Amino acid sequence: MRVLLVGAGGVGTAVTRIAARRPFFDLMVVADYDPARAEATVAAVGDPRFRAERVDAGDEAAVAALLARHGCDVLFNATDPRFVMPLFRAARTAGASYLDMAMSLSRPHPERPYEECGVKLGDEQFALAAEWEKAGALALVGMGVEPGLSDVFARYAADELFDEIEEIGIRDGADLTVDGYDFAPSFSIWTTIEECLNPPVVYEKERGWFTTAPFSEPEVFDFPDGIGPVECVNVEHEEVLLVPRWVDARRVTFKYGLGREFIETLKTLHLLGLDSTTPVTVSGADGPVAVSPRDVVAASLPDPATLGERMRGRTCAGTWVRGVKDGQPREVYLYHVVDNEWSMAEYGCQAVVWQTALNPVVALELLATGGWSGSGVLGPEAFPARPFLDLLTEYGSPWGLREQ
Amino acid sequence: MRVLLVGAGGVGTAVTRIAARRPFFDLMVVADYDPARAEATVAAVGDPRFRAERVDAGDEAAVAALLARHGCDVLFNATDPRFVMPLFRAARTAGASYLDMAMSLSRPHPERPYEECGVKLGDEQFALAAEWEKAGALALVGMGVEPGLSDVFARYAADELFDEIEEIGIRDGADLTVDGYDFAPSFSIWTTIEECLNPPVVYEKERGWFTTAPFSEPEVFDFPDGIGPVECVNVEHEEVLLVPRWVDARRVTFKYGLGREFIETLKTLHLLGLDSTTPVTVSGADGPVAVSPRDVVAASLPDPATLGERMRGRTCAGTWVRGVKDGQPREVYLYHVVDNEWSMAEYGCQAVVWQTALNPVVALELLATGGWSGSGVLGPEAFPARPFLDLLTEYGSPWGLREQ
Repeated sequence: MRVLLVGAGGVGTAVTRIAARRPFFDLMVVADYDPARAEATVAAVGDPRFRAERVDAGDEAAVAALLARHGCDVLFNATDPRFVMPLFRAARTAGASYLDMAMSLSRPHPERPYEECGVKLGDEQFALAAEWEKAGALALVGMGVEPGLSDVFARYAADELFDEIEEIGIRDGADLTVDGYDFAPSFSIWTTIEECLNPPVVYEKERGWFTTAPFSEPEVFDFPDGIGPVECVNVEHEEVLLVPRWVDARRVTFKYGLGREFIETLKTLHLLGLDSTTPVTVSGADGPVAVSPRDVVAASLPDPATLGERMRGRTCAGTWVRGVKDGQPREVYLYHVVDNEWSMAEYGCQAVVWQTALNPVVALELLATGGWSGSGVLGPEAFPARPFLDLLTEYGSPWGLREQ
Repeated sequence: MRVLLVGAGGVGTAVTRIAARRPFFDLMVVADYDPARAEATVAAVGDPRFRAERVDAGDEAAVAALLARHGCDVLFNATDPRFVMPLFRAARTAGASYLDMAMSLSRPHPERPYEECGVKLGDEQFALAAEWEKAGALALVGMGVEPGLSDVFARYAADELFDEIEEIGIRDGADLTVDGYDFAPSFSIWTTIEECLNPPVVYEKERGWFTTAPFSEPEVFDFPDGIGPVECVNVEHEEVLLVPRWVDARRVTFKYGLGREFIETLKTLHLLGLDSTTPVTVSGADGPVAVSPRDVVAASLPDPATLGERMRGRTCAGTWVRGVKDGQPREVYLYHVVDNEWSMAEYGCQAVVWQTALNPVVALELLATGGWSGSGVLGPEAFPARPFLDLLTEYGSPWGLREQ
């Protein structure tokens, strides 16, 4: 397998470190808009199978040319979601497979944003599904940890643990803290604001997909491995759009364990208009300047990419399922926990970033070895779950099942 | 009496409208850095005793020259506290009396900011007291509503209501709301952040002045005239520095009725570093720019000066006193309430601004008519309270007393 990895940020770098320990691929070209970043990532991994390149992820033709030049058979998108569509199209143009960890962006319903969906996450990609199918080509979408592993868990529950499923609820929580800071998100505040203030999407069999107001349906979920109870709220996330396409369930939700303090902080930012990306005018050193309040919020907080060494605690991704097995009610939580001290010591990667990078590498290996195959635009739940979960354990990062 | 009023902002404008109804002065020169603002203020009042001028409040010599040119016998400082010292010195140079509504600024203790005072509010002014006394000249400091009327109430309690005073606590609260906004402070958020995040100062007879952490000693105070219970916290304020110099009390505090939501909002801004005035770098239209996060917060909210027409509710300033009278424990709250609809209709001024402007005009009239006289740097509590309170009632804005 010959891979073009686009994006040498935190996740891209972790991908190289995880993949370097596996024999399934022959070449991984690491391409970034900033060539120095790509080169540093490749140099750090010290493996002749890796090569650095410069590419603008928004330049479809340049990406397709790069795929052709290196004879890559798969494009692995590790950039931010704004670049999903150009990369997705470039892969199709070049005849390569495609893999991403977040899907094409949504746009709220213009009149009823908190009741009806507008353009949904992934809609632009699924609109081209027939083209991929016809070509016998595969786009594996939403294949990180959440979405990704969480979708694999949903399929596993449907195949092996339940006869009927009432609800599938992805639940994400952590007890990560950052030494020396009273408040330091372990992920991009800019993106978190975007995710959390978009109208959350919910799926119900009778109703289809619909939206709610931000922070709806708060619940306290008890996370395993000592993380404990964390307040979770509905957030717009790919699983709610992916799972119902392949798994039969009455209801699908995604709730993010932001915790009370963080939820209140985001609400306050929204109340004050500080989540806005519409520029406001303030005085700068050389006269008035227009700046985005959200950019100022992000700039006032420490850069999460630099906090790995100061972080403590664990992050948990998982899928809670409630339904019936053998005529009896059943409820399980399938989960995967990463301890930051472990991921820093073992891979030099922050836990959330490492957990995101791990799963697409496992998926690539399954595609390379034939454990997974298919064509069209497919989510992780379109494939058999068991080979994925077994390989995950072989990677040294086992998952867990808790009967509730 | 010939007055130089420096500052034609909200309070300065309200001063002209209140003073215009009174006969005690011959000339009031309204000077501002922005001559158009001074001219608009004078034009709106339509009284030949008012004249507009341009002056830079930071230019001591220019202010002294302006006082001399118009033969003014009193400088009335209605600017922001950064200009206290140049205006205070300019008045002394020109041989004029001086009046302000906020005192020279504090600086926190460099090592123990939340335990010990550094430079206290007014310290720079009191350092020059001997000079004023020797010249037989008067600087009446802290003569707005709080400080100002609140200090008059403290003196009144000591003179007429108590034999011994245990505690004097200024308590400020309101039920003001702004139509059409979920969150719109009725006063400058920039200044509120400054006031509320400075270490609050407390006075105790045995211990002297000391500081605490911001938002300390929260209490719910029940405000009169239908305002009701509001959560109050310690805030740095002039009364705590002024009252103990002339009134015998075991303890003096100032608590600001910010309410739970506002307190949490300020704490969140502090936690995120958005209260900071140290510039952060963000991208602007033409490349990176450095801006103060606090300026961005202020720019993201509606300008309180423009909200008078949309505001509803009342503001209450007052002094709560606990002690002993005739061997019996006694507790009173002396207060002054202004309804925004009334002040808008009657004076075209927002309630908080009008209440601040009213009291120094009453004081000026007492100085002009000989009801108050003295020399040195004196707070409002250095003068007999009864003539002030009687004249306040004559101005059509009576005060109240509630036995607790």
